[in-house]
Amino acid sequence: MNEVEIGLTKRAIRGYSFDDVAVVPSRRTRDPEDVSVSWSIDAFTFSMPVIAAPMDSVMSPETAIAVGKLGGLGVLNLEGLWTRYEDPSSAYEEIANLTEEDATEGLQRIYAEPIKEELITARLQQIRDAGVPVAGALSPQRTQEFSSTVLSAGVDLFVIRGTTVSAEHVSQNREPLNLKQFIYDLDVPVIVGGAATYTAALHLMRTGAAGVLVGFGGGAASSTRAALGINAPMATAISDVASARRDYLDESGGRYVHVIADGGLGRSGDIVAAIATGADAVMLGSTLARSHEAPGRGWHWGPEAHHPTLPRGYRVHVGVDGSLEQVLLGPAHSAHGRTNLVGALRHSMATCGYSDLKEFQRVDVIVQR
Amino acid sequence: MNEVEIGLTKRAIRGYSFDDVAVVPSRRTRDPEDVSVSWSIDAFTFSMPVIAAPMDSVMSPETAIAVGKLGGLGVLNLEGLWTRYEDPSSAYEEIANLTEEDATEGLQRIYAEPIKEELITARLQQIRDAGVPVAGALSPQRTQEFSSTVLSAGVDLFVIRGTTVSAEHVSQNREPLNLKQFIYDLDVPVIVGGAATYTAALHLMRTGAAGVLVGFGGGAASSTRAALGINAPMATAISDVASARRDYLDESGGRYVHVIADGGLGRSGDIVAAIATGADAVMLGSTLARSHEAPGRGWHWGPEAHHPTLPRGYRVHVGVDGSLEQVLLGPAHSAHGRTNLVGALRHSMATCGYSDLKEFQRVDVIVQR
Amino acid sequence: MNEVEIGLTKRAIRGYSFDDVAVVPSRRTRDPEDVSVSWSIDAFTFSMPVIAAPMDSVMSPETAIAVGKLGGLGVLNLEGLWTRYEDPSSAYEEIANLTEEDATEGLQRIYAEPIKEELITARLQQIRDAGVPVAGALSPQRTQEFSSTVLSAGVDLFVIRGTTVSAEHVSQNREPLNLKQFIYDLDVPVIVGGAATYTAALHLMRTGAAGVLVGFGGGAASSTRAALGINAPMATAISDVASARRDYLDESGGRYVHVIADGGLGRSGDIVAAIATGADAVMLGSTLARSHEAPGRGWHWGPEAHHPTLPRGYRVHVGVDGSLEQVLLGPAHSAHGRTNLVGALRHSMATCGYSDLKEFQRVDVIVQR
Amino acid sequence: MNEVEIGLTKRAIRGYSFDDVAVVPSRRTRDPEDVSVSWSIDAFTFSMPVIAAPMDSVMSPETAIAVGKLGGLGVLNLEGLWTRYEDPSSAYEEIANLTEEDATEGLQRIYAEPIKEELITARLQQIRDAGVPVAGALSPQRTQEFSSTVLSAGVDLFVIRGTTVSAEHVSQNREPLNLKQFIYDLDVPVIVGGAATYTAALHLMRTGAAGVLVGFGGGAASSTRAALGINAPMATAISDVASARRDYLDESGGRYVHVIADGGLGRSGDIVAAIATGADAVMLGSTLARSHEAPGRGWHWGPEAHHPTLPRGYRVHVGVDGSLEQVLLGPAHSAHGRTNLVGALRHSMATCGYSDLKEFQRVDVIVQR
Repeated sequence: MNEVEIGLTKRAIRGYSFDDVAVVPSRRTRDPEDVSVSWSIDAFTFSMPVIAAPMDSVMSPETAIAVGKLGGLGVLNLEGLWTRYEDPSSAYEEIANLTEEDATEGLQRIYAEPIKEELITARLQQIRDAGVPVAGALSPQRTQEFSSTVLSAGVDLFVIRGTTVSAEHVSQNREPLNLKQFIYDLDVPVIVGGAATYTAALHLMRTGAAGVLVGFGGGAASSTRAALGINAPMATAISDVASARRDYLDESGGRYVHVIADGGLGRSGDIVAAIATGADAVMLGSTLARSHEAPGRGWHWGPEAHHPTLPRGYRVHVGVDGSLEQVLLGPAHSAHGRTNLVGALRHSMATCGYSDLKEFQRVDVIVQR
Repeated sequence: MNEVEIGLTKRAIRGYSFDDVAVVPSRRTRDPEDVSVSWSIDAFTFSMPVIAAPMDSVMSPETAIAVGKLGGLGVLNLEGLWTRYEDPSSAYEEIANLTEEDATEGLQRIYAEPIKEELITARLQQIRDAGVPVAGALSPQRTQEFSSTVLSAGVDLFVIRGTTVSAEHVSQNREPLNLKQFIYDLDVPVIVGGAATYTAALHLMRTGAAGVLVGFGGGAASSTRAALGINAPMATAISDVASARRDYLDESGGRYVHVIADGGLGRSGDIVAAIATGADAVMLGSTLARSHEAPGRGWHWGPEAHHPTLPRGYRVHVGVDGSLEQVLLGPAHSAHGRTNLVGALRHSMATCGYSDLKEFQRVDVIVQR
Repeated sequence: MNEVEIGLTKRAIRGYSFDDVAVVPSRRTRDPEDVSVSWSIDAFTFSMPVIAAPMDSVMSPETAIAVGKLGGLGVLNLEGLWTRYEDPSSAYEEIANLTEEDATEGLQRIYAEPIKEELITARLQQIRDAGVPVAGALSPQRTQEFSSTVLSAGVDLFVIRGTTVSAEHVSQNREPLNLKQFIYDLDVPVIVGGAATYTAALHLMRTGAAGVLVGFGGGAASSTRAALGINAPMATAISDVASARRDYLDESGGRYVHVIADGGLGRSGDIVAAIATGADAVMLGSTLARSHEAPGRGWHWGPEAHHPTLPRGYRVHVGVDGSLEQVLLGPAHSAHGRTNLVGALRHSMATCGYSDLKEFQRVDVIVQR
Repeated sequence: MNEVEIGLTKRAIRGYSFDDVAVVPSRRTRDPEDVSVSWSIDAFTFSMPVIAAPMDSVMSPETAIAVGKLGGLGVLNLEGLWTRYEDPSSAYEEIANLTEEDATEGLQRIYAEPIKEELITARLQQIRDAGVPVAGALSPQRTQEFSSTVLSAGVDLFVIRGTTVSAEHVSQNREPLNLKQFIYDLDVPVIVGGAATYTAALHLMRTGAAGVLVGFGGGAASSTRAALGINAPMATAISDVASARRDYLDESGGRYVHVIADGGLGRSGDIVAAIATGADAVMLGSTLARSHEAPGRGWHWGPEAHHPTLPRGYRVHVGVDGSLEQVLLGPAHSAHGRTNLVGALRHSMATCGYSDLKEFQRVDVIVQR
């Protein structure tokens, strides 16, 4: 075990982030064209292992459709601007124009608007009409309230996403969501998280989830560590959750629960590191928020940013790198690693001699110092 | 042991600061409302494990009262501006207006004013009149001179705070304070420190102290390391002192001496890390100096900053983050981790599935790389 | 083994870069004049262990000749500006004048011009006429297409250089270069790379290569790590490849394959670190791009910078440090470690008491922390 | 052993600098007034363990005298401006006025002026007339040429100081200095260095040296690491040389050779770290160059800065912190750790409970992470 002694009464494990690890080519190379980056979960197959994060800066119904058409999975945030406002464009406009100083209070105010069930239905219908897989996300706090609306509207994949989601939530004042029963009762696959440890993930897998999101919102716009002292260095978290995947596969007699990296994926090299440490797919936020089509207008923020009493994220200016297609599939006209993300993954796999994602999880990695 | 070899003749232990550690959620989560952050020392119970540091930038009689009313413990510096000046407002004004270049010399001059015993009495009386627990602090150098005045005035808790306080001070020219005898003779609980090692803390515990302050003034305004080469990475120091607490509990047949983190607690995540590594409570300086009510007017400095011949601290500009209530209890309208400190602690404990502070000392922690 | 556990399912080796290591003088010192830095590969002997990188910012036919006359080996890029343009001066001019924003697209456009075989012949002839060793480089992708032209034109050393070159390239759509057969058929020594691991290098050595380039373009102008997640901390890579050199020497019954560090050599101290960890020679890019004679006009870029769909390098401004002679042989009139590179290597070897390069590979090294 | 594997063929030891280590107070404290910082070497006793470095920015005959009167040892550079120029004030003026760009070439030009033997004699006589211990320094390269002049003029301590000085210098073209014979023939104690390893120092001790300088010019103005790839993390170097001191003490039947830290001592905390890891005294450069009296006029540079072909140091602007007395003995009116250096050492020793320098070499140290 990679354990250190903090002091006489406390031990800790040592964690590694994407920045700490890199992959290492070896004796064989391949043509990038021969590499497959396709990914399947439940009955759905995607030509890239990319899920667009249910964040308002990234996903509108239109961008969810666009991501689907490019071969990935777009997930709409079902408790965000698109279900609070009939026409959220002025809310987006306002967010883009908030001063640095007023950003958090502005977000708190804009998100105080109630969620409308009919908008949940309408937004999902719009995506379904486009003929791409339909996916929507709720936080665990809202899942009980709105899940029946979501299911009536119809989704292909249902995402329950919070900073931390556990299989066992304890509450003295209300009946908490029984995740296992809830998933059992649904007839759509559920992706749930964040989780970042072997134990947390194993229990989530036992609820029947089809996929587990790894991470605690550790992305570009998060201050979870500063505010809560919680951190999950991503490379370690993914490897630990991948270990739970393997053990649960055995325990369940063959259920393969997908491990989806969610956070810290700002450059294509981070996506490489995520797969290399065990992820099956990645959920992307800030890189997609940088596309022309993203509704955020060059700004990026997550749901933690507008918590009414304890905001733990920022609205950050990310700018625009290119079209959604350029961001995902290229061509890149810059070397910063934020465009042609899928091409870079493919190229890196080819350079290391691998031909599919599952194999690439075994590539050799190096830690610098 | 986490030991390293500096060279052929020198070994060292490896220390970790709050920045190095983070807590890790696991399989269970909780509602923040179900979490208790209350803390008791001697006969006193507080609704939050927060002591306001006896620093002139933080504590006036009014802010000591305000902290008490919010559920924490305010400690007045009994050898600072409030006991040197009948009306310290012009001294505060002058400090706020010192140029960067003149700051240290200005502080040395302003603090050259003698301490008045009658002001000690008056300030403590003012706090007592407000009906909150009364606490005052002296440095070990001044304790013998002024303690009888303090005791006559009446305090509920007495704090002896220096950069380093040991159970055994040796002097060739004067009779040093016999801490054990002194504490024995008092009939109020004493909190004493800083200390940062198992041995130093164990000896302080044996003097009869009710609490030990951990740290050497390692906060935002300190240059102790640059000037003296002394350092105490806080996570390690707390864990080591917590080990002394456990051993002394056994040795004494049941005396539980409280471990109070004092230094480096600039964000709520640091408070989480302090409890997670073994602290019972925290003493806060710069974060409270950032409140509207703080007497420092947006500036922060400690007693080391005005040492007449060897200053080891700075007057630093910290600005204002919100009211004392917002800083401690929220709501936060920013994500920087400097407001709603207690709410963040509560939230972090809930996310990790813990329901009281004592249990939370056992939470899993991770070190990044 | 210097292995770390990233998580429960993933181990990694720990790598060190040139910045991490330094050499340590010991009990003996020497006069720098008594130190030999000469280097021989195949039938060629050089008075310095320096190869100029086949990059358009560094090498023109004239600078290849100049490096040869100073005692090193210049290698012309045979698929760069000099073989695409009859007179490349306006292309250089244009590159120097690109704005930061347009740099990558501009390079992509300028390098879209086809390669002309007759220019390959003419450029190599020009170098041969000057009486210095003739060396040219192709990427593995172009080697099959242009190697016969190169061989007809005549080279003394042939360099196959890509980000990653393996002994076994797999392709479903075309017959890949059979490196072993290719090298066997040639009657000139071949230097090939980059490679960065024991295994990759050992297989390259088995193809019959005379030298192996170590590194993945990790230099000043590269973003390989950000884009591809691939990294090769140079000190570790060199040491591992030196291990392959030793094992292959035994396996082959005496063939000594030269290990040439290629990347991260921005200061003379890095060259020292490269030899100290096992390199026989170094391939220099940015330091030579900083010479008056370099065709890049104060700018530096590599072939990755103009990849049509996945650029992984930048055009960076490096300025001018002095003449090629000053950069290589001094005298230095600055202390930045970018001039008198060979003098500094000689001085460092003398200070550590060594008299030739092969011995200096055994010098003691230290890692800071 | 604190050894790491750089790669398959290379191991390294891990080194620590002053920044990495800090001392840790324990169970006892003391009054600073009760602490002795006196230091004796050969027949000379100093009230502080401080040697002023033989650098032209630090030492003039006047400042050598002033340091002596304050209780330390001033060492004049006998091959610097004071022995090249009858009146060096215009040289100092010129150095202070060189532009950043011309600094190195300017120093090379100014130091091209030959050394005059009569000036060596005159400068040493001036110091002797003031009644303080007389010490002068030569580089190993100049020692043979000028030592007889120095000895005729009369010195109490003779310093041979270079970047690296070994007991065994090998030269093919000239008879090198036989250090052992040279020291044997002298009747004054010799301090010699830099050295940074056990082996190098042990051999220097065997030459009969009274003290060994530890370090390779690793100070504020040095670029030795960038240029030569040579580095000696100071805490490790001191501890290793202290180990040689102990072994040589045994081997020689009682000769105690002093270990003098030379380099990286920019703040009082570094001086603490130097003693704490085993040094007997410290040689100070940049901190003294910051005094009013220093001849450098707010600039600092070492002999490496004007090497004619391979400069490895910079002229850096350091400004002025106070009088020589304030720098060494206080009072400090700033918290940056660059004034009251001796007071800070005394205070740190007292805080850790130690009463003399030799004991303080055993203080507990901590490495942060």
